[in-house]
Order: sequence, then structure tokens, then C-alpha cells
Amino acid sequence: MMPRTPIWKSITTTLEGEIASGLYRVGDKLPTEAALAARFGVNRHTVRRALADMTERAMLRPRRGAGVFVEAPPTEYPIGRRVRFHQNIAATGRVPERQMLRIETRLAGKTEARVLGLRPGERVVVFEGLSISGGAPIAHFESVFPKTRLPGIADTLRQTPSVTEALRLNGVEDYTRRETRLTAETANATQALHLRLREGDPLLKSVAVNIDLQGHPVEYGTTWFVGERVTLIVSPD
Amino acid sequence: MMPRTPIWKSITTTLEGEIASGLYRVGDKLPTEAALAARFGVNRHTVRRALADMTERAMLRPRRGAGVFVEAPPTEYPIGRRVRFHQNIAATGRVPERQMLRIETRLAGKTEARVLGLRPGERVVVFEGLSISGGAPIAHFESVFPKTRLPGIADTLRQTPSVTEALRLNGVEDYTRRETRLTAETANATQALHLRLREGDPLLKSVAVNIDLQGHPVEYGTTWFVGERVTLIVSPD
Repeated sequence: MMPRTPIWKSITTTLEGEIASGLYRVGDKLPTEAALAARFGVNRHTVRRALADMTERAMLRPRRGAGVFVEAPPTEYPIGRRVRFHQNIAATGRVPERQMLRIETRLAGKTEARVLGLRPGERVVVFEGLSISGGAPIAHFESVFPKTRLPGIADTLRQTPSVTEALRLNGVEDYTRRETRLTAETANATQALHLRLREGDPLLKSVAVNIDLQGHPVEYGTTWFVGERVTLIVSPD
Repeated sequence: MMPRTPIWKSITTTLEGEIASGLYRVGDKLPTEAALAARFGVNRHTVRRALADMTERAMLRPRRGAGVFVEAPPTEYPIGRRVRFHQNIAATGRVPERQMLRIETRLAGKTEARVLGLRPGERVVVFEGLSISGGAPIAHFESVFPKTRLPGIADTLRQTPSVTEALRLNGVEDYTRRETRLTAETANATQALHLRLREGDPLLKSVAVNIDLQGHPVEYGTTWFVGERVTLIVSPD
């Protein structure tokens, strides 16, 4: 007896269920065709048909020589006067997360001192991490805070993943974006590893300064957004 | 008798003069070390020292396996409510130029019709070209205009390289940017050729809609900016 549903279709249903349940997350690599064929007890041609169907519906994305990856439409990220990672991501219906890579206190570099208005010898707190949206890493960031102005910021950042909250706990009631400078770069080996990309994949680099209500810089941040997972939206206020 | 100026220094002076005079322009590849050594009658070590000095001062940029290229600091390009190529570039003290690749009238695609608010079967004028700043190509663009609304736009674009001027000649007194969507991509073979890049070099892709004073869309434009030659600036108005 022939089954009513083609085998390849039942494979897509299974894989889609596993993606929906979080077994495979956005950015994850699927097992090879050979492994899937063994798992489902079918030949590779049947697996290929299932993967092609899911690729056509933008659920998967094949990368030449690297395999097939779980895909999702890009996260839309507004860049304007008020840029808030958690609010921005939550507004798209995805779960925002931050993964901390490093918190370090050190002397301000030349550019940092100029941008943050520091005197020679003043120190900064550097917060490096990954921004995650709906389970997929969408950006690598490095934020630099003035230590004298925000003496407790390193401790607060260890307690809360939200920069807005960390700044509030250090007396910065509100802040706005002064300027964002955008350009395109390619991922280096470390970024590729962190962001689940290949070296050379395109990144949208943003360099921004946030200021408090008195106009004093409180954060000098660089973010490398994953080109294929993020669209920045600039709208006139 | 030893010369007062080291030979390598006189080579940098010569090359700098040739760059300033436009003999070599930004993005151009310099002759090989061997060719420069032959030209100046020195050994390659001396040439290398001259090139290293100019590289350190950001006048040249070596690319692994490709040679040494004439470099310039990135063109800063403001993205806000009013985005005008000619004004933007002229404001940086460089000469803006546009090179036309194609003007074509055809049926609107699905996305184009939706964005421009067209009925099925309406036509668009497609204007494809290169944006040039100070002699270097900084972007590849494709602009789509509604044909019914702007029946003469194809002819006007052939006469003036300025979109602002072409729109004015078609009755659009003024226009503003409704939204800009930004992401990062890598250059394909055609873009690499047009933009004097290598395939895989990073591009900043901008998709934008311009509207007239009544809020009707008049241009749907996609621009691929060369990552290493352009910085987009987003400032609150």
C-alpha cells in the first residue's frame, strides 16, 4: 500500500516540528544528507527533496560547502534617537538574550577618551558580548563606559544583561543616541565562531554614542550585526 | 656624496604628487614592486619601504595577493529625512559623479508595485548606475520610478545625472525619505568589476523609499555602498 503522504513531506513535517520545539535553532546546521537519510531510512534523493522544499519556503538555507542551516526572516532593528536592544527585539516577537564574553576595566584608548570626553589616564569599563534574538546570535558588541562617571557599572552589568537597566542603577535616568556610524565589514575567525558564521560573511558595523539627558556621553558602543539575520531600519522620528 | 633625502622618501613624494594630480586615483592599483623598482632604478627593498610609509599614513592599502591600492578616508554619507547624493558628497569636499549603466522601462515587479502603490500591469522606469566620489566608485544603485506618475522620467534621467533635478523636471517639487532599511552583503562578480573590488568584499545595502510632499512614493531605491569607502551617518534630525 502506498502511503497517502509522500515520504519527503513527512520528513519536512518532522524537521519543522523539531525546529519549532527548539531542538534545532535558527543558525544551527542540520545533519548531513547522509545522516538524515540513515535516520529516516530513505535514500538521499528523498532527503534532498525535503530540504529543497524547506529551502524554498525560507526555513532552511544551504551554504555551499558548509551544509544546510536553519533560517529565519531577518530581525528588524530600528536605529533612531532611542535604541534599546531588549525593547527592539521583544517588539519583533522574539526573545532577546545577551551572552557576556568579557567585562574589563582598563585605561581609555585615544579614540575612546576623545569620544567619551575623558582626561588622560581615566579608565573605562569594556563590556563585550553577543546579542541573541529568538535563539540565534545576531550581533557581536563591545560597549565602552566611562569608569569615573559610572563607578559601579562593571558590577551592575554582571547582574543585569540590560544596558538600560545597568545605566539606570548607576544614576543615568535616560539616554539617547547622538549618532550612529554604519559601514560593512566581513567576519573574522573569532566573530565567525561566536556568531555561527563562516569567516568572510558580511557584517554591518555600527559605531554609536549614547548621551545622558545633560548631553554627556555615557556609552561608546561598536556592534557587528550579522548581515543575513538583521535589517536595520532608519525612520525619521 | 649621500643624498640629503633618503631615496625611499623621494619615491613617496613622487607617488603622492601623482595621486594628487589624478594620475592614480582612489581605488587604482599601483604598479607592482618590481615595476616601481625598475622605474625608480632602485631595489625592491627601497620600494617596499616607500609603500610601507604611505600605507602607514593611510594613503595606500595593500590587499593580500592583489597588490597595493590608492586609498582615501571613507566618504561620510548622512542618512536622514533628506538624502541627496550630490549635496551629500559635495559637502565632504569631493566631486560627486554618476555613471549610468542602464535606463529601462518594464512592468513593475510584485514588491515594486506594493512599495510604489501601483496597480497590476503598471510600468516602472529602472535607473541603474554607479555613484562616484572623488574619482572612486562608492556605490552601485538601482532606482525604480513609477512610470504613470512620472511619464518623462526616463528622458530626464538621460539628461541629468541628478535624481533630485530629474524629479523636479517631472513636477516633484520636493521629496523626503520615508524609511531606509540597511543590511550587509558581499559583492558579486559584476559588482566587484563595477566597483573595483574583489568578489566577496563587504557592501552595505540600503533599500529606501522616497515620497513627495503629499506622501506618495516617487522612488524605490536600492544602493550597495562599498564598505571600506563609505560610512553612513544616522543622526536624529
